[in-house]
Amino acid sequence: MTTKNLFNQIKAKQSFLCVGLDVDQDYFPVKIKDSPDNIFNFSKSIIDTTAKYCVGYKINIAFFEAYGIEGWNSLEKVMDYLNNYYPEIFTIADAKRADIGNTSKRYAKAYFDHFDFDSITVAPYMGADSVEPFLTYKDKHTILLALTSNKGAADFQLLHSGNDMLYERVIKTSLAWQNSNQLMFVVGATKAEALITIRKLIPEHFLLIPGIGAQGGSLEEVAKNGLNHQCGLLVNSSRAIIYASKEMDYAEKAGLAAKKIQEKMKELLIQNHII
Amino acid sequence: MTTKNLFNQIKAKQSFLCVGLDVDQDYFPVKIKDSPDNIFNFSKSIIDTTAKYCVGYKINIAFFEAYGIEGWNSLEKVMDYLNNYYPEIFTIADAKRADIGNTSKRYAKAYFDHFDFDSITVAPYMGADSVEPFLTYKDKHTILLALTSNKGAADFQLLHSGNDMLYERVIKTSLAWQNSNQLMFVVGATKAEALITIRKLIPEHFLLIPGIGAQGGSLEEVAKNGLNHQCGLLVNSSRAIIYASKEMDYAEKAGLAAKKIQEKMKELLIQNHII
Repeated sequence: MTTKNLFNQIKAKQSFLCVGLDVDQDYFPVKIKDSPDNIFNFSKSIIDTTAKYCVGYKINIAFFEAYGIEGWNSLEKVMDYLNNYYPEIFTIADAKRADIGNTSKRYAKAYFDHFDFDSITVAPYMGADSVEPFLTYKDKHTILLALTSNKGAADFQLLHSGNDMLYERVIKTSLAWQNSNQLMFVVGATKAEALITIRKLIPEHFLLIPGIGAQGGSLEEVAKNGLNHQCGLLVNSSRAIIYASKEMDYAEKAGLAAKKIQEKMKELLIQNHII
Repeated sequence: MTTKNLFNQIKAKQSFLCVGLDVDQDYFPVKIKDSPDNIFNFSKSIIDTTAKYCVGYKINIAFFEAYGIEGWNSLEKVMDYLNNYYPEIFTIADAKRADIGNTSKRYAKAYFDHFDFDSITVAPYMGADSVEPFLTYKDKHTILLALTSNKGAADFQLLHSGNDMLYERVIKTSLAWQNSNQLMFVVGATKAEALITIRKLIPEHFLLIPGIGAQGGSLEEVAKNGLNHQCGLLVNSSRAIIYASKEMDYAEKAGLAAKKIQEKMKELLIQNHII
């Protein structure tokens, strides 16, 4: 999927919402806690009620991986379902992979060839040759961690090196990598003020913004500092949507929670003359 | 497994070799390229001929993940085999995971609870709360990336921040994390000179050293700068062992390649009065 396709979808749905599928049996309604294939069925129900309000699904791979083979089976089914029924929606493997070149190549194969995700999140610590194997895929996107939403972000990402903080250096350095136009960047919603600096470095790139909702970031602040002429933002909400209800109306309530965010996003897109 | 158990094994086998299972069908002998269950069968044969010469197996998760469900099935079988037949051998999930706390918790569940690995490699970029969930497991070990063996290591790991390079800061900062005694660190064999500095910071911790063989690092240099009173090193070799032959004698040749390294290691352990 190209970023142009993504922007067209943003305009059509008047939304830049990404729904995070952090699928956790511990939060399931009691009635489906032990039902067969409940990871897939829960995901499918959530997708069906939220798809018209969002432009992306961010699938948190850890939550599938934790269940071993059962989880991987569910992941295959979720991705088949999305690719068959909602091919226009941007899919993100939130996997935070990266390793030496021959190994990153394998992760790229897993997520781009095998599962056919549109994008994957990648950690920058190992540098150029750990990220470039992902960037060789045309019309796929590599979402590099820049400034994350968690407390531990301060440990290394905010360290000063010369005139830059590490996360700024990560962004600047990555722009010289091969196919860097296929990069997107993760910036936590809890770090909305940093978006001003970040937009100076990368005015055009899309940013994936986790951290509104359960983690406490503000959508308005993020939009104010982060929107660009083609929107340029994918704002993720996971728990606030998919666990909006712990009863059997969970899918319906997830749809309503997504709709509420989409309505705010529509206003923000209009206010900023993007739609 | 405790580090004491690991040291006992090092003394018993007179080896600090870790065999890397980067299992790649493209390198398999032609005769088994399309045989059923060949990922597991190849791994099993390699394990059986190398187990007496090594103290650890580093399983490169990407190489299994790339094959989807088939790969995960093979990974289950390889770990069942190791845990049942070679429970004394230290197992490393070379996965380079890490994410916000609730997600790292899931990765820890996958590799420590589900697969019962003794350790996992973890990336430091997201800081304390992305690593501590791994450290809560008693007698399991978290192997933090410090200075990696690849070219891209120079992009960020060698950046100066104050008086430290980033990788030094990663080591120093991580020592304040909860259960930091359960940390080990990755240092590439191609960076053997840095081991002198690193051993000043962490004289006691075990280091996982990839990069001898195909990547060009020197075992002698690594031993000279990295050995401590309880050995403190796990030196990994992957391709040079498991693809020592592309014919049907691959397992036998892998055993011979491992034996050759073990013999050198024995000398180094004796020279340094460790055994």
